Amino acid sequence: MTLKLGVIGTGAIGQEHIRRCSYVLQGAKVVAVSDINLKGAAEAVKRLGLEAEVLSDGEQVINSSNVDALIVTSWDPTHEAFVLAAIAAGKPVFCEKPLAITAEGCKRIVDAEIAYGRRLVQVGFMRPYDQGYQALKKVIDSGEIGQPLMLHCAHRNPAVDESYSTDMAITNTLIHELSVLRWLLNEDFVSAQVIFPRATAHTHAKLRDPQIVLLETVKGVRIDVEIFVNCKYGYDIQTEVVGESGIASLPEPSSVLLRSNAKRSHNILTDWKDRFIDAYDTELQDFINGVIKGELTGPSAWDGYAASTAADACVKAQNTSGPVSISLPPRPAFYER
Amino acid sequence: MTLKLGVIGTGAIGQEHIRRCSYVLQGAKVVAVSDINLKGAAEAVKRLGLEAEVLSDGEQVINSSNVDALIVTSWDPTHEAFVLAAIAAGKPVFCEKPLAITAEGCKRIVDAEIAYGRRLVQVGFMRPYDQGYQALKKVIDSGEIGQPLMLHCAHRNPAVDESYSTDMAITNTLIHELSVLRWLLNEDFVSAQVIFPRATAHTHAKLRDPQIVLLETVKGVRIDVEIFVNCKYGYDIQTEVVGESGIASLPEPSSVLLRSNAKRSHNILTDWKDRFIDAYDTELQDFINGVIKGELTGPSAWDGYAASTAADACVKAQNTSGPVSISLPPRPAFYER
Amino acid sequence: MTLKLGVIGTGAIGQEHIRRCSYVLQGAKVVAVSDINLKGAAEAVKRLGLEAEVLSDGEQVINSSNVDALIVTSWDPTHEAFVLAAIAAGKPVFCEKPLAITAEGCKRIVDAEIAYGRRLVQVGFMRPYDQGYQALKKVIDSGEIGQPLMLHCAHRNPAVDESYSTDMAITNTLIHELSVLRWLLNEDFVSAQVIFPRATAHTHAKLRDPQIVLLETVKGVRIDVEIFVNCKYGYDIQTEVVGESGIASLPEPSSVLLRSNAKRSHNILTDWKDRFIDAYDTELQDFINGVIKGELTGPSAWDGYAASTAADACVKAQNTSGPVSISLPPRPAFYER
Amino acid sequence: MTLKLGVIGTGAIGQEHIRRCSYVLQGAKVVAVSDINLKGAAEAVKRLGLEAEVLSDGEQVINSSNVDALIVTSWDPTHEAFVLAAIAAGKPVFCEKPLAITAEGCKRIVDAEIAYGRRLVQVGFMRPYDQGYQALKKVIDSGEIGQPLMLHCAHRNPAVDESYSTDMAITNTLIHELSVLRWLLNEDFVSAQVIFPRATAHTHAKLRDPQIVLLETVKGVRIDVEIFVNCKYGYDIQTEVVGESGIASLPEPSSVLLRSNAKRSHNILTDWKDRFIDAYDTELQDFINGVIKGELTGPSAWDGYAASTAADACVKAQNTSGPVSISLPPRPAFYER
Repeated sequence: MTLKLGVIGTGAIGQEHIRRCSYVLQGAKVVAVSDINLKGAAEAVKRLGLEAEVLSDGEQVINSSNVDALIVTSWDPTHEAFVLAAIAAGKPVFCEKPLAITAEGCKRIVDAEIAYGRRLVQVGFMRPYDQGYQALKKVIDSGEIGQPLMLHCAHRNPAVDESYSTDMAITNTLIHELSVLRWLLNEDFVSAQVIFPRATAHTHAKLRDPQIVLLETVKGVRIDVEIFVNCKYGYDIQTEVVGESGIASLPEPSSVLLRSNAKRSHNILTDWKDRFIDAYDTELQDFINGVIKGELTGPSAWDGYAASTAADACVKAQNTSGPVSISLPPRPAFYER
Repeated sequence: MTLKLGVIGTGAIGQEHIRRCSYVLQGAKVVAVSDINLKGAAEAVKRLGLEAEVLSDGEQVINSSNVDALIVTSWDPTHEAFVLAAIAAGKPVFCEKPLAITAEGCKRIVDAEIAYGRRLVQVGFMRPYDQGYQALKKVIDSGEIGQPLMLHCAHRNPAVDESYSTDMAITNTLIHELSVLRWLLNEDFVSAQVIFPRATAHTHAKLRDPQIVLLETVKGVRIDVEIFVNCKYGYDIQTEVVGESGIASLPEPSSVLLRSNAKRSHNILTDWKDRFIDAYDTELQDFINGVIKGELTGPSAWDGYAASTAADACVKAQNTSGPVSISLPPRPAFYER
Repeated sequence: MTLKLGVIGTGAIGQEHIRRCSYVLQGAKVVAVSDINLKGAAEAVKRLGLEAEVLSDGEQVINSSNVDALIVTSWDPTHEAFVLAAIAAGKPVFCEKPLAITAEGCKRIVDAEIAYGRRLVQVGFMRPYDQGYQALKKVIDSGEIGQPLMLHCAHRNPAVDESYSTDMAITNTLIHELSVLRWLLNEDFVSAQVIFPRATAHTHAKLRDPQIVLLETVKGVRIDVEIFVNCKYGYDIQTEVVGESGIASLPEPSSVLLRSNAKRSHNILTDWKDRFIDAYDTELQDFINGVIKGELTGPSAWDGYAASTAADACVKAQNTSGPVSISLPPRPAFYER
Repeated sequence: MTLKLGVIGTGAIGQEHIRRCSYVLQGAKVVAVSDINLKGAAEAVKRLGLEAEVLSDGEQVINSSNVDALIVTSWDPTHEAFVLAAIAAGKPVFCEKPLAITAEGCKRIVDAEIAYGRRLVQVGFMRPYDQGYQALKKVIDSGEIGQPLMLHCAHRNPAVDESYSTDMAITNTLIHELSVLRWLLNEDFVSAQVIFPRATAHTHAKLRDPQIVLLETVKGVRIDVEIFVNCKYGYDIQTEVVGESGIASLPEPSSVLLRSNAKRSHNILTDWKDRFIDAYDTELQDFINGVIKGELTGPSAWDGYAASTAADACVKAQNTSGPVSISLPPRPAFYER
């Protein structure tokens, strides 16, 4: 069976996902697209060599009888409505993060999905599909390092422009740690605190950079995440898990060892798009396979809601001097793995 | 267009390639198979969930009007005949190494392909498709380390059984270095010498292990390759390129950094099948794409012939005290890249 | 000139320093010792092959006309009195940490030294003499990574016994970070906060382990130090300095690279005595040279006082939910470097 | 006891050894020096702050009643005569490499020392005193990697001037591998072969660079040593020991890990004097201690003779197309360790 996909939002990310589904992955084909910018959507269809309709809006794509499942890569504030509409139409939907721009919005999606009775939503949190994170989780789950007690993490980016503001360090950047660390530890967060070190000279008035977010989990695991979006030197993700009997760290991406100019060195990536590039393929293939098989197992609407709730607390903590409580209702049985 | 593939040989490697073409890669489907063991072929078709005919022999597959292109994964001595038959039928053929079991056999294939007038053959040398080797070649081609002068390589395997004999270190193991190093340096070899260190206790009467092969290229680059197939500790491939101004080494596979039991360590693979696992996908997709596009660009019959000629010299050198000359005719314009 | 040393306290550390001064370093000789346990002191003198008097108490050693300078390696609570007595006698004194068991005690020593008019005291903070820390400071001071913004540190030990209590994580363990980080950044701390992750199963009732100490400096640099004294896997010190344009980390001790049992690994030390073993030699030689030259430049009584003040705040922070202020008077001109 | 040393040759190396013996090491003092350039010798004495006589020639130093032991750091061709004279005077002598400029010269020294009846000679092969080499030997001797079968080594230097000729790659550079590898494996060499890769552009008419020396030991261990004295990128020593069950490699010198400019890197040394700098201290202290104790245990005249014999074969092999035999008489019981 070839899954017929409708893509809502044909900007950079949407085009990348279209490319993947059309030319890399198995079992799907893009049959309809839409975008606020219809002309751009048409040009994208042409450039990508698709045999796909350009429809006038996302609802048209969702409700097209020719479309089996949706990919939502539109402007963030529109995600919630499109996902709810997909659920209303009973169609599976892969929604790029954020699932919704508020925790309440995520909760509305959760409630709608539970009411529907079957999982329809997969959120675009790709890191659990990364081979490095999978290897790390395997070590933790094996018990080889004992119970995790502390995590030391970093999310560093060379530079951002003037449109990137302090809160985006949480909503755009930390959101990936807020999702993958829940998956890694199989735990929820109970509090968040944000610490602002002295700022780098390489930032701008609307952005306090770097930041350190301190998280606590239900079982008392303590996590520190350094977020530094103007670090200059590269795009660098670090996750170190300190357990009772050992430490396991996320692998560095594989790279040539060079001896040159009195240094032995490995390259560090500079573009965020390269860091988890294989994981985007894997998450979408997992969505396609799941839809065809009739069972989605990737990051769920609940995972989106949990990450969003944590993100809200972190943004609040940016303006609070101590820890901010994160309270999440118990995970519904509907979302038990 | 969906390329209709016929697979000749449904043993372990054949089944893996069938799995790839059917469930991982784009643009192809397996429509016919054959194997010496017809019952095994039928079971494989069933287990792999194929809609494919089981034909009584390779020629039937090659000549089936339903088959566009061939994959040859049969018993090594049968490769030459199948490839020649595919060329005679004017059909593209991906042939697992060895292209033929003698250099003369490879030459017959080269002559047949040139006579046909268009490239039809791709040999299953996967290392040029490995991301690590590609990154290494990119550094060399950039000129960053200057002209390569020496290569220090190693091909190590934990253990082999009693059926593995001294010459197989060349024909089965070194053959991969003989192909990828030509590609890496864009050069041919002019001589080979084999040195036998004291043997490991962990070998058997019919296998001198380890061995060191010394190769010289046209431009005078000197290469040493340690082949150690009972090394015990892991499956480990090393390629270090010493240039006029620096050194570049093949990346280690990415792995978790573990601190445990008074060691900081990374895992080393133990199964050869894991080391270049992604490259098998990439080489087959490149074959499929090339056939659909009408132009094969992967390792050619000439590359198979050159590697085979070099391998013959290495086997001879195992029984000679000094260097053995490797002479290859000039590469025909037909094979210019 | 050969400096004639008196050593007060001939336990394990005292004997090690005696060994160094007698057989490794230049320019000094131990001429008198004392210890609460006179019999032990006599045996130590014999075992170490010294020509030294065993005097009945520390004051006797300090006031002996044959002694030029003192080394204090006695029971911690006695350090203050011996150092004050050495200052009163106008004799240089190398005092193992802690300078005194209270910040007030350290302040009394500072005041006495200033009153004396010339530096007489060097505190046994050895890390600034470690080649790794010196290399790290050199990188920071060069400006290569820009202004330091954050430090991520860890002080890990395999196991401690039942006598090691929660506060000792500060007074015995973190005290080294409290001194070396001031030296590394050339800054003082302004606040400390202690976070307790879930405890390891491998601790005991009187010890909360691990702990995370968060420090803030005058310029706003934020430091996190993980203290984990039952970490099981090894003795491991980590210091990572995140600057505006790069990151510099304390070197790992040099070790053999081993490929064995499907791992490529380096050993991690297990005994704290090995980690900075060369630095003990260097700090004592620096003391000896400084006394002979007439100018001490190593860690001063003020450094001891500053570290002690910070330590007090950290111990208080262990029992406080938020940050605890660290206030240190301005450094007297007497201690300007 | 303070050993009274006479130093013959006050050039750069001589001054460094004088500095060590006077200001770093224990138990010795330089009381007399000589040099072809008497004025330079006098200036050196003054600059180094010695209370030492400047004598008119090496014989005077050797025969001075005030001198207990000798350090020979004069022009290479004069070493043999000074060492023989020291033996004739019954005085211990530390001789910088080369012990003599011919194997026959080394043999004359061996014969003289055996005739004397007690070891008097230590040769300045410092690598066995290097902590890295000691750690490597410890791993090998433990049996952890099984019997060594192959060694892959490299001795790389950034650049040499026009006075450095092809044979000096053996006599000045490889000589260190020829001595330390005998110590590491506790074996002698039986043959040497030299291979010349294509030359680097960064060499001159009188120097073929790089070179690869292939050595074989009595037990059949095969060793390849890459010698590349204009490698540009740094001063880099590599020693990899491949055993029956694992591989152990010489540690890289400890260095800061830097993340900067899209690279994670460690510095590589550029000056040969820095690479084994601690080993020079250790070897001289071992000589001093050995003389005082009455038993020298460092690299012996026999070790100098064995290395010289191997070096002669390597120089011959530079001009021979195949292997050159290395024959060494059996080691006299006099030199049994």
